[in-house]
Amino acid sequence: MVANSIEYVLGIDGGGTKCHARLENLAGEVLAECITGPANPAQDTAEALASITQAMHALPVQAGLPPRMLQQTRAVLGLAGISVPAYAAIVRQWTLPVSNVTFTTDLHIACAGAHGTDTGAIIITGTGSSAFVTTSQGPRILGGHGFPLGDKASGAWLGWRALSYTLETLDALHPPSGLSQAICQQAGTSDAAQLVAQSLHLRSAGYAAFAPLVFAQAQLGDHNARDILAEGGDYLRQLAAQIATHKPARFSLIGGLAKPWLPWLPSDLTTQLSAPLGSPVEGAVALARGDIFEPTPGKLQHV
Amino acid sequence: MVANSIEYVLGIDGGGTKCHARLENLAGEVLAECITGPANPAQDTAEALASITQAMHALPVQAGLPPRMLQQTRAVLGLAGISVPAYAAIVRQWTLPVSNVTFTTDLHIACAGAHGTDTGAIIITGTGSSAFVTTSQGPRILGGHGFPLGDKASGAWLGWRALSYTLETLDALHPPSGLSQAICQQAGTSDAAQLVAQSLHLRSAGYAAFAPLVFAQAQLGDHNARDILAEGGDYLRQLAAQIATHKPARFSLIGGLAKPWLPWLPSDLTTQLSAPLGSPVEGAVALARGDIFEPTPGKLQHV
Repeated sequence: MVANSIEYVLGIDGGGTKCHARLENLAGEVLAECITGPANPAQDTAEALASITQAMHALPVQAGLPPRMLQQTRAVLGLAGISVPAYAAIVRQWTLPVSNVTFTTDLHIACAGAHGTDTGAIIITGTGSSAFVTTSQGPRILGGHGFPLGDKASGAWLGWRALSYTLETLDALHPPSGLSQAICQQAGTSDAAQLVAQSLHLRSAGYAAFAPLVFAQAQLGDHNARDILAEGGDYLRQLAAQIATHKPARFSLIGGLAKPWLPWLPSDLTTQLSAPLGSPVEGAVALARGDIFEPTPGKLQHV
Repeated sequence: MVANSIEYVLGIDGGGTKCHARLENLAGEVLAECITGPANPAQDTAEALASITQAMHALPVQAGLPPRMLQQTRAVLGLAGISVPAYAAIVRQWTLPVSNVTFTTDLHIACAGAHGTDTGAIIITGTGSSAFVTTSQGPRILGGHGFPLGDKASGAWLGWRALSYTLETLDALHPPSGLSQAICQQAGTSDAAQLVAQSLHLRSAGYAAFAPLVFAQAQLGDHNARDILAEGGDYLRQLAAQIATHKPARFSLIGGLAKPWLPWLPSDLTTQLSAPLGSPVEGAVALARGDIFEPTPGKLQHV
């Protein structure tokens, strides 16, 4: 039996809230794109596999191609959580319908997407936060230790800071402000015990739902919101300073909160930034196509 | 059938780590004292009931009295978590072996123990943190919203701050210090991924295990440890300022971290403090004996 030749490339950006998948032919034409459920193996391995499999089956249907085309498809999966070796070991056991699969981190594909190469550096701030930089010793991940230990300046951190400050306001430790009022309005209560009961079992995404209020209130001049942004901005500046020691060719700020953060960051950080060239899922597809120079052999984990 | 007359009083201080119980006769002689397992109904209702029942059965045995003495015993149980109405409703359904049971919060018995009256005010800092003050409208609880939303300046908060700072140090965002080295030594690793993996599922008590290192390193002059204590001390100062508006007759700082905190608090706080007269379990016993003037009828929830 002869191995099928590769005719298609498939990229997956798998995170804690969704799985973003994209199918292209070797000429770079987009044939299909879809979004399925959560795909962070460190949160729920079975759910991640289900979301990824569902996406892989949906793409040929959407492209009007027979399912067997997956046997001529090379896939790169950039998944949150697999920088933890235990989860990387689990995903390598998965049986997937494509002929050729490579696993890497969501940070690696994001860097590839942002720069059209997997050298360079990125800071991601969305529900979580982290940074990725290619050093002379290979790729290095900074931050991203998960909320509440890390993920400072992320949506989860911003929302948590705003809720915690609001509870102090309800304890009369600070006078009420635009921020505490906005938080109470979104939560639908200004009773401390009720706010605690609602928030007790929040995970990162639940906290992050309050993050937009911090930016909006800072814009309106609220000093408490501005203090929170100053503290988070200082952390992003520290991350950028550490990244700068590796002299990346390009450096981008990406993720769902990149745009809201920009006006609140110190200019010595923002002047270093380049606009991202593409999305993480585009980075995954480019890595699958082999467009991207691979400076550190063995970094991608082939199965 | 005639109701048994009350001959004995029993106090229970039920918290997230242990259940402390004490039996006295009406003359105030201590007949027995014991400690059983966790007794916070908001954490685990069945476990709390088991710990409390176990303590109630152990006390007569220890005192050399027949089990039926419990039918002549009035008990006051001060339990963590029952300021949340849902948990107060659950514990009122419990069947306990004593003839007369009253439930109240752990803060109420602590205040009664510290001041020999349940007026006055306390700040507790142990694994968690909170404050209790008797106001003209009745008792008021401040803080204590649970980690990570609240419980600032508690052991959980101190340990978490130290771990979070240590991870930033391992990311090279700060130079290593006495504090980060002490944390790595206690954790048995200086690898960020390993430290995260160990800490991912920590609950309050797990974080609090690192709190003593913060005091020890501050004592040795470590600026990072001192910055953490300054921030926590500022929160305790804010709590005290809010309490002071109610002009309590006495004000005490209690809990496992009260003594380590003292040298690090601003003098405008420490000059307000009175030494606690007794422990929370002594407060519960005194409330059961009826020694304590009850300024706000209906505050105790009789079953």
